[in-house]
Amino acid sequence: MPISIVHLGPAGTNTETAALHYAQWLTETQQQTAVLCPSPSIAQTLRTVADGEADLAIVPVENSIGGSVTMTLDTLWHLDALQIRHALILPISHTLLSYAKVLTAIQKVYSHPQALAQCTVWLEQHLPTAQLIPTNSTTEALQHLDDLSVAVISSPRAAQLYNLPVLKDSIHDHPDNCTRFWVLSLQPSPGGDRTSLAFSVHDRPGALVRPLQAFAARGMNLSRIESRPTKRSLGEYLFFVDLEANGSKPTVQLALEEVSQFTETLKVFGSYSVLP
Amino acid sequence: MPISIVHLGPAGTNTETAALHYAQWLTETQQQTAVLCPSPSIAQTLRTVADGEADLAIVPVENSIGGSVTMTLDTLWHLDALQIRHALILPISHTLLSYAKVLTAIQKVYSHPQALAQCTVWLEQHLPTAQLIPTNSTTEALQHLDDLSVAVISSPRAAQLYNLPVLKDSIHDHPDNCTRFWVLSLQPSPGGDRTSLAFSVHDRPGALVRPLQAFAARGMNLSRIESRPTKRSLGEYLFFVDLEANGSKPTVQLALEEVSQFTETLKVFGSYSVLP
Repeated sequence: MPISIVHLGPAGTNTETAALHYAQWLTETQQQTAVLCPSPSIAQTLRTVADGEADLAIVPVENSIGGSVTMTLDTLWHLDALQIRHALILPISHTLLSYAKVLTAIQKVYSHPQALAQCTVWLEQHLPTAQLIPTNSTTEALQHLDDLSVAVISSPRAAQLYNLPVLKDSIHDHPDNCTRFWVLSLQPSPGGDRTSLAFSVHDRPGALVRPLQAFAARGMNLSRIESRPTKRSLGEYLFFVDLEANGSKPTVQLALEEVSQFTETLKVFGSYSVLP
Repeated sequence: MPISIVHLGPAGTNTETAALHYAQWLTETQQQTAVLCPSPSIAQTLRTVADGEADLAIVPVENSIGGSVTMTLDTLWHLDALQIRHALILPISHTLLSYAKVLTAIQKVYSHPQALAQCTVWLEQHLPTAQLIPTNSTTEALQHLDDLSVAVISSPRAAQLYNLPVLKDSIHDHPDNCTRFWVLSLQPSPGGDRTSLAFSVHDRPGALVRPLQAFAARGMNLSRIESRPTKRSLGEYLFFVDLEANGSKPTVQLALEEVSQFTETLKVFGSYSVLP
């Protein structure tokens, strides 16, 4: 039976590219075949797997320019069941697609808000008067490519897949543009040198310092910390933390035990490795 | 001469409502009149004031459901000049506008991504099959209200201002939905019991703990901490911190001095008060 992998679709999104990479890794290292299932949203992607209707979900977590993908973090906090199997990091390249022959013809640019954000400087320099119009995915933007005054920011793969003309490639603002993805399932995490967790704290001076000290005192590095609102009232937060540490080691377990005493709710999403 | 206040426009956005509140406060307490200037984006709002073309900028900083407004934080980090004069917190109410008479007629819902995010649960319960389409502002969404199958999420003020039919009011998911705004200018901050700052750290174990300890050791409460990518490479962050402390007090100045030793770059956006 092939493994089912749910991802933000339709075909041509950067998350689909990540899913293709993971499917290839499964074939090469686990002799497992996989089938890709596009989903209309990140929340739906995660819920499909939490409900047991598919095996794996792959979702973007953060981008080096745009920052955290808040929909992923907010949905994971509410779905208790999912655990991280692997992380993978992919370079992200943005391409300007249009039937126009010159940039001066472009009056509207459609794309996902993260893609627009990752090309802010280029757009201000080369298309300062163009209207920027957000869409639900970089692939969904392609349906607007019916007019010579329209351009779309999408992946090079989408250009190939749908046979669309590239007006300018590599328009993202920073050459090292990367996105980190997580692969999640209902199974326990396989273990590895990264551990991800989230917690809420009581509102008092130093409330965040104590859990962080539990890690720092043991020489454990936080590779990421991100706050999200609890949504209950302004000023109440959850914190998402990635540790460079293996959750199966006794020192890490001691740190997590200490953290649980200083937090209101603590959720551990498992230990896993970052695929090369 | 009236004071010029730049805000995200056009008229009817929640930021315009915040600007109207601030203009009223200026009139009542400072006998100052103000003129409102709509801007097409948050980045442009801030740059207009940084360039000396207007007196004050008012921008959203965070919402109790959607979290930080990352465009505000990213632009402020790059514009060195602006200082915070005041914060104000406004309740945010979302209204579903449509020429349709019943919800079952609605196939598409247009609004700003933050507004769509603040109504996620309501939309899933009452319009589960409707397509959600992002726009640059809640007011810009109104231009799509030309069809009986379309609804827009906008402010009650926009419904009044443009004389549009309300299909359902108060559709936001949490009753205490609030947004915090900052008023900024090129002048030094007036002082007050809140201090906001941002810093980047060197990537090493405990890098974030040391600056936080400098505040915790002096009993100073962080009312908010938010990470943003430096955009240089994945895993490098800036941290935005709000302190419940007055920057003119010697203990706060000592803490900031200590923090500057543990950080790569430290920017203080001033001390100010939260308007009632």
